[in-house]
Amino acid sequence: MKKYKDMSKDELLTLKAALMEEYKEEQAKGLSLNMARGKPGFAQLALSMQMLDEINSKSDMRTLLGNDTRNYGDLDGIGECRQLMADMMEVKKENIIVYGNSSLNVMYDTVSRSMTHGVNGSTPWCKLDKVKFLCPVPGYDRHFKITEFFGIEMINIPMNSDGPDMDLVEKYVNNDATVKGIWCVPKYSNPTGIVYSDEVVRRFAALKPAAEDFRIFWDNAYCIHHLYKDQQAEIPNILEECEKAGNPDMAYMFASTSKITFPGSGVSAIATSTTNVEFIKQQLTVQTIGHDKINQLRHTRFFKNIDGLKAHMEKHADILRPKFEAVLNAFDQELTGLEIGSWVKPLGGYFISFDALEGCAKKIVAMCKDAGVVLTGAGATYPYGKDPKDSNIRIAPSFPSVEEMEAASKIFVLCVKLASIDKYLEA
Amino acid sequence: MKKYKDMSKDELLTLKAALMEEYKEEQAKGLSLNMARGKPGFAQLALSMQMLDEINSKSDMRTLLGNDTRNYGDLDGIGECRQLMADMMEVKKENIIVYGNSSLNVMYDTVSRSMTHGVNGSTPWCKLDKVKFLCPVPGYDRHFKITEFFGIEMINIPMNSDGPDMDLVEKYVNNDATVKGIWCVPKYSNPTGIVYSDEVVRRFAALKPAAEDFRIFWDNAYCIHHLYKDQQAEIPNILEECEKAGNPDMAYMFASTSKITFPGSGVSAIATSTTNVEFIKQQLTVQTIGHDKINQLRHTRFFKNIDGLKAHMEKHADILRPKFEAVLNAFDQELTGLEIGSWVKPLGGYFISFDALEGCAKKIVAMCKDAGVVLTGAGATYPYGKDPKDSNIRIAPSFPSVEEMEAASKIFVLCVKLASIDKYLEA
Repeated sequence: MKKYKDMSKDELLTLKAALMEEYKEEQAKGLSLNMARGKPGFAQLALSMQMLDEINSKSDMRTLLGNDTRNYGDLDGIGECRQLMADMMEVKKENIIVYGNSSLNVMYDTVSRSMTHGVNGSTPWCKLDKVKFLCPVPGYDRHFKITEFFGIEMINIPMNSDGPDMDLVEKYVNNDATVKGIWCVPKYSNPTGIVYSDEVVRRFAALKPAAEDFRIFWDNAYCIHHLYKDQQAEIPNILEECEKAGNPDMAYMFASTSKITFPGSGVSAIATSTTNVEFIKQQLTVQTIGHDKINQLRHTRFFKNIDGLKAHMEKHADILRPKFEAVLNAFDQELTGLEIGSWVKPLGGYFISFDALEGCAKKIVAMCKDAGVVLTGAGATYPYGKDPKDSNIRIAPSFPSVEEMEAASKIFVLCVKLASIDKYLEA
Repeated sequence: MKKYKDMSKDELLTLKAALMEEYKEEQAKGLSLNMARGKPGFAQLALSMQMLDEINSKSDMRTLLGNDTRNYGDLDGIGECRQLMADMMEVKKENIIVYGNSSLNVMYDTVSRSMTHGVNGSTPWCKLDKVKFLCPVPGYDRHFKITEFFGIEMINIPMNSDGPDMDLVEKYVNNDATVKGIWCVPKYSNPTGIVYSDEVVRRFAALKPAAEDFRIFWDNAYCIHHLYKDQQAEIPNILEECEKAGNPDMAYMFASTSKITFPGSGVSAIATSTTNVEFIKQQLTVQTIGHDKINQLRHTRFFKNIDGLKAHMEKHADILRPKFEAVLNAFDQELTGLEIGSWVKPLGGYFISFDALEGCAKKIVAMCKDAGVVLTGAGATYPYGKDPKDSNIRIAPSFPSVEEMEAASKIFVLCVKLASIDKYLEA
């Protein structure tokens, strides 16, 4: 394979003409494929249908402690569901508050509460002139939307292959008291698939924040969402590490079953120090009388325990793996050696991240769209939707079928090639 | 019956001795009854068990429009559930956003959003020196807890038999720009059971607020929660009336199915102008990817339509009515003519409100507790938990059985009598 950057103008033009033929053929097929959002596919949803039989009109609706899940009570979740979420998030039950269906909503509430009520007694953030969050990039667009919504200034932190650039994180957190938080997806990061190294996690725990109310927003969305049974990432537990490092209250961990059972009908939780739990409960007791305990019961009866949960995740992996590999195979076969893009092979999570040549991402996304393949908007993986290099593209392979992923990947690599050729032709 | 106030000291002491004998007998029974919170009883919960069969592993999980309820989407609720809630709240579907399980949470979010983002473009309330809410009293403790939590100053507004004192409401709202809201339970008010008159509703709609961001928080919690089929209260629709009066955006209406299906596993909604709906959705789209649509589907398949909902509520009424009447009969038989308390016979809702002689409420609640009957804490029906007259007591008759309500009512009236005698003896 000759690298594009080494091709002459004539070679590039000849190649472009051939690829445009291919592109037009693909366009003519009139495909309609969506790789924009991390939605589970039909086969994945089918895995949890049996859960809907766990609770019916004949069911005993009481928890193990005998509480009626149909009535008010158990503000922080029923005991067995707190235990299940604790096991999933690898923390103690006392560190868990079970919430409603959406961990995003828990994160939103956590930021919102900090705005109006501060953090464990600190000045409410809305009373401060300036509040900043660090945002490892590329990252999850919905994290960035929350901080943007509250007028929090976002600072890009580059991602290395083992997690965020910790020199930069330490520089900001340890010196700037207006830096109040950082968004992290530590395992199978959205969108890069990167897993934070042990050293990165420990450097997080050992931060010496200038702000007493600095918090790590540790979105452990993909904590048990492995793709390969023999290559399961393990990371140190941030709550334990923070405690060891003398920062027991510094981290909030979030997770949900949205991508385990049903998006929108799952169970979410926050895991944090008991001091933080007590503070959060002061809000929670005002905010609601409790979350959906019948759904908590449904989940715990279906999974029984952490082993049931893990066995269920293997079924998800069996469905997802070929879809990821369809994309990665196309990249390997069509793009290796051309030096017109880079990617990481994820071992879990929901996304594949592609870094195109600088200035090409928007064009690739637009060309894909014109050929019937919808991707997450270029730039969405950056705060304010602005990718300074216009390079990163997030690919969500979960929803389409394997065949559709193959077809979509074919179009994607074509568009990458065409956009790259144009870049070199314009240079 | 001789009025207590007309009795001599000797008469009072003789009566007290006899009643104390009775009280001790009751104490000796070692009862344990809870009339503290408006929890549905077992028979009521049983009414909705069939709903749990509506969705099982064999179900078609699609909405009428074909959307898969198991996946992301339908941020403001599935169409058929929005229609059902619209019919229940007597508004148009376009005015409805369906939320999660808790209308309290929707109210909390609405206040919280106003704190951080203002109302349709107004200055965020957290940036203002002073924000006030009017609180018709006695009222719902959890409303007051929300405003207290956000540091909003609460002003008591006395309740008349047809709703809040509107002269006072108009005086505050129309002249004081720091007054940003009022808490209302317009039908079968918590705790008085009072129904706002047509005139009161129309005076609400015709307010000329000094603050552009003043909003009526219209908690229509008991909109279809009638006790008597032939005496169903109807009130003018506040959204329509506000529109007619040139205040289309002034009201937020809240409701849920917490006391229709299952507390904690119901469906809640806000109904408001389409302008407000658009503003709220700007938040909602950041806050969550959506609420539990499977539970929405479960509800709509169970009730089918508003007629199904209303038929279901008649079953609730059949269960609740004898419990309410057990209390009211005890009051009628034991307290009529003594002039030591007053009450209203509710035609719906969840509570009976008792106004004892000034200074007696705390004592009555404490004496009841010592005899095994737990009531809502005296003062809870007022902002900051402070009933200036120490007079109002909220009774929740829904959870205990009819027999238990009879036993509890017997103790309650005994305590009312004893506390009243002490008051006159001390005078």
